[in-house]
Amino acid sequence: MTEFIPPGTRYIDLPSPFPMRRGGELHGARIAYETWGTLNAARDNAVLIVTGLSPDAHAAANDANPAPGWWEAMVGPGKPIDSDRWFVVCANSLGSCKGSTGPASINPDTGDLYRLDFPQLSIEDGADAAAHVVRELGIDRLACVIGNSMGGMAALALLVRHPGIARSHINISGAAKALPFSIAIRSLQREAIRLDPNWNDGHYDDANYPESGMRMARKMGVITYRSALEWDGRFGRVRLDSDRADDEPFGLEFEVESYLEGHARRFVRNFDPNCYLYLSRSMDWFDLGDYCTRGDDSEADTRAGLTAIRIDKALAIGAATDILFPLQQQREIADGLRVGGADARFLALDSPQGHDAFLVDFDRFGPAVRGFLVAL
Amino acid sequence: MTEFIPPGTRYIDLPSPFPMRRGGELHGARIAYETWGTLNAARDNAVLIVTGLSPDAHAAANDANPAPGWWEAMVGPGKPIDSDRWFVVCANSLGSCKGSTGPASINPDTGDLYRLDFPQLSIEDGADAAAHVVRELGIDRLACVIGNSMGGMAALALLVRHPGIARSHINISGAAKALPFSIAIRSLQREAIRLDPNWNDGHYDDANYPESGMRMARKMGVITYRSALEWDGRFGRVRLDSDRADDEPFGLEFEVESYLEGHARRFVRNFDPNCYLYLSRSMDWFDLGDYCTRGDDSEADTRAGLTAIRIDKALAIGAATDILFPLQQQREIADGLRVGGADARFLALDSPQGHDAFLVDFDRFGPAVRGFLVAL
Repeated sequence: MTEFIPPGTRYIDLPSPFPMRRGGELHGARIAYETWGTLNAARDNAVLIVTGLSPDAHAAANDANPAPGWWEAMVGPGKPIDSDRWFVVCANSLGSCKGSTGPASINPDTGDLYRLDFPQLSIEDGADAAAHVVRELGIDRLACVIGNSMGGMAALALLVRHPGIARSHINISGAAKALPFSIAIRSLQREAIRLDPNWNDGHYDDANYPESGMRMARKMGVITYRSALEWDGRFGRVRLDSDRADDEPFGLEFEVESYLEGHARRFVRNFDPNCYLYLSRSMDWFDLGDYCTRGDDSEADTRAGLTAIRIDKALAIGAATDILFPLQQQREIADGLRVGGADARFLALDSPQGHDAFLVDFDRFGPAVRGFLVAL
Repeated sequence: MTEFIPPGTRYIDLPSPFPMRRGGELHGARIAYETWGTLNAARDNAVLIVTGLSPDAHAAANDANPAPGWWEAMVGPGKPIDSDRWFVVCANSLGSCKGSTGPASINPDTGDLYRLDFPQLSIEDGADAAAHVVRELGIDRLACVIGNSMGGMAALALLVRHPGIARSHINISGAAKALPFSIAIRSLQREAIRLDPNWNDGHYDDANYPESGMRMARKMGVITYRSALEWDGRFGRVRLDSDRADDEPFGLEFEVESYLEGHARRFVRNFDPNCYLYLSRSMDWFDLGDYCTRGDDSEADTRAGLTAIRIDKALAIGAATDILFPLQQQREIADGLRVGGADARFLALDSPQGHDAFLVDFDRFGPAVRGFLVAL
C-alpha cells in the first residue's frame, strides 16, 4: 500500500508494544510525519497539526517534497501557519494508510496485512501516538495544537490525556463527541463498503476491490462535507452536455451528479477501505466525556471533559453551513475550555462550503488562524 | 405486486392511450384512489390529496378499509381535513406500485411486467393522471388541492397544466423545482439500487431482490427526511443493549443505527425498486418553469411558472429543519403564487422532525391545515 504515501514522508517509531485503549497492542508501529520551519533553541515554537480522516502528513510543500499539500494555502513561510516563526509538524493519523501504521500495514506477528486483525482503533489511540511524536521531536510543550474535523476530536483527546502538552489550541470544524446524525451518516458509509461483496470481510486486493462500496461511501461523504447553499449557486439544475451524460439507465444527467462522480473516482483507489472503516468508527465512538463521568452517573459528561483541559488560549472555528460537525459543537468546545480557564473564543464563519470550508475557504479561515497565532 | 395494495382501493381508468410527456404512451393504465366524505350537490366541496413518493391512496380509515392510514390524524370526520365538510380524494401516484399503473405493472403489449420498458415518468404525467381522476369523479373544480413533498411538486404541475382545476392550494414541504442537494441525495439512492447486482437492470424477482440497494436507499432517505436536531434529543449517543447489538464486524452499536435499520426493514419488501427509481428521477427532472421559459432564454424560469398559476388562496408550509425540501422552497411557492394573484401565505413551522414533520408533527401541521380549510 506504499503507493498512498507521499515522497519525503518521515517516520517515528511508536513504543513497542503500543497499548490500544480498547484492548490489544501494536508491535513495531510507526507514525508518518512532515515538518516545516525550524525548532528554536527554547523548543517553544512548535505547532502540531492533527488531520481529518483522509489527509496524509503532506500538508504543504517543503524541502523534502515540493509538491503542493492538502493545506498549501495555510502552511508555509508567511502563510497563516507561518513556518518562518513556527516549527510546524503534521502527523498522519494512526490507523491511516498514508504512512502511519494501520489496517493496511503488515502485521509483524503474521507477515500479512492486518486487515480486520488490527486492534479496535479509538481517537484516543491516535492522540497518544501524536503525543509520542511530539516528545520524540524534543518538544515538551507545543505552542499550539491545531485539529481539523476528526483531528479536532484527536486534539481534544491529546489535551485531556497529556496535560501540559500544549499552551494553546485551535479547533477547526471539530467536535467533543459524535452526534447521532453524523453517526448515522458514517454508519451508512461503512455499510456501503461492507455490503460490497468485494469487501469480503476485509480480504480484498487490487483485482477484487470494493470499488462500489467506496464510491458510495465517498459520495455520501461529499454530500455531507459541502452544503446545499453552495451547490444551489454552483450547480443549480445545470445538465451535463450530451457527450458527458451517461447512457446507462438512470445514469448521470446533472452537473452535481458528475461532480460527485469525479470526487468518488479520485478517492476510491487512493484510500484503503479497511482503514476507512476503522477511522470512521473511531469518530462515532468518540466522546471526550468518557474520561470525566459524573460521580454516580455512568453517562459520559462531555462538558466535564472539556473543562478538565488546562490551556492558556483557544479558538474554536466552524462554518455555519456545516451539517456534519455543526457550529453548536465548536461553540460547546469554546464554552467548555473557557470554563476550564482558557481564554477561549468561538468563531462562526459564513462559509458556504460546509464542513469542507477549512480546506477551501482560505479567505475566511486564513485570517482567523493567522490572527490567533500572531497573538500567541 | 398486488401485495402492496391496501384492501378497499378503487380505480379509475386513464384514457387509453395515455400520452407521456417525455415520449411514449400507456395503454389500459389506471389510478388507484380512495375517498372520505360525500361530494355535495354543487360538487364544490372536493379536496384532492397528492402524495409523496411512497404512500398509497389509503390516507386514513374509511368504510372500505377501517385500518389506519398514513395520514390518519389529518383526514376524517372532525379532523383537519374534515370529511364531514369535504369530499376528500387521495390518489396514488402514477408510476407507484400501490395500485396505480407503474413499472411493476403488467405491460399489456407483452403480458410481462413493464420494468424498465415503462416510459420515462415525469411529475407532470402524474399531475395529468390526477386531473383525469378529478374529472371522472364529476368534479369540475376542486375546493383545494393539497400536495405533500413530491405531491407538492405534482400539485403545482396540476395547477399549471389544468387551469381552473382548483380554487385553492396547500403546499406542504413541497418545491417548485428540484435543487442540487436533493438531486445528489436521490441520485445516490438510485445508484445504491443500481449497484446492487440483484437489481439486474430491473430484472429482479422476490428470490433475487436488490435488498441491499433498497436498504441503503431507504436509510439515506430517512437520514434526509428527519433532522439532526430531532436525533440529538431522541437518540443522543445511546448504545444498543448487548443483546440487540450486532456481532458482525462494524455492525450496529448505537440506537440511531438500529432506528435506520428498522426503517429499512419495513420498507425494503414493501416498495418496488423500479417504481422507486422512476418516481425518484421524476422529482429530479421537475422544474415548474419548464412551461414558462423566458422569451429568448432557454433556461427554465421557475418563478414565471408559479406566477402563471391562477388560484384564489394558497398556503405553503414547511419545517425549519427540512434539508431535503428546505423552507426557502415553500417561501418561493407562496411568493410566486402571490404575484400570480393568490392570497398566498408562507408558514414556517418549528418542527424538529425535518422533511417528515408533516407525517408526525400534527400539533403544528394540523392547525395550519385546519385553519386554511375552515376559512375557505
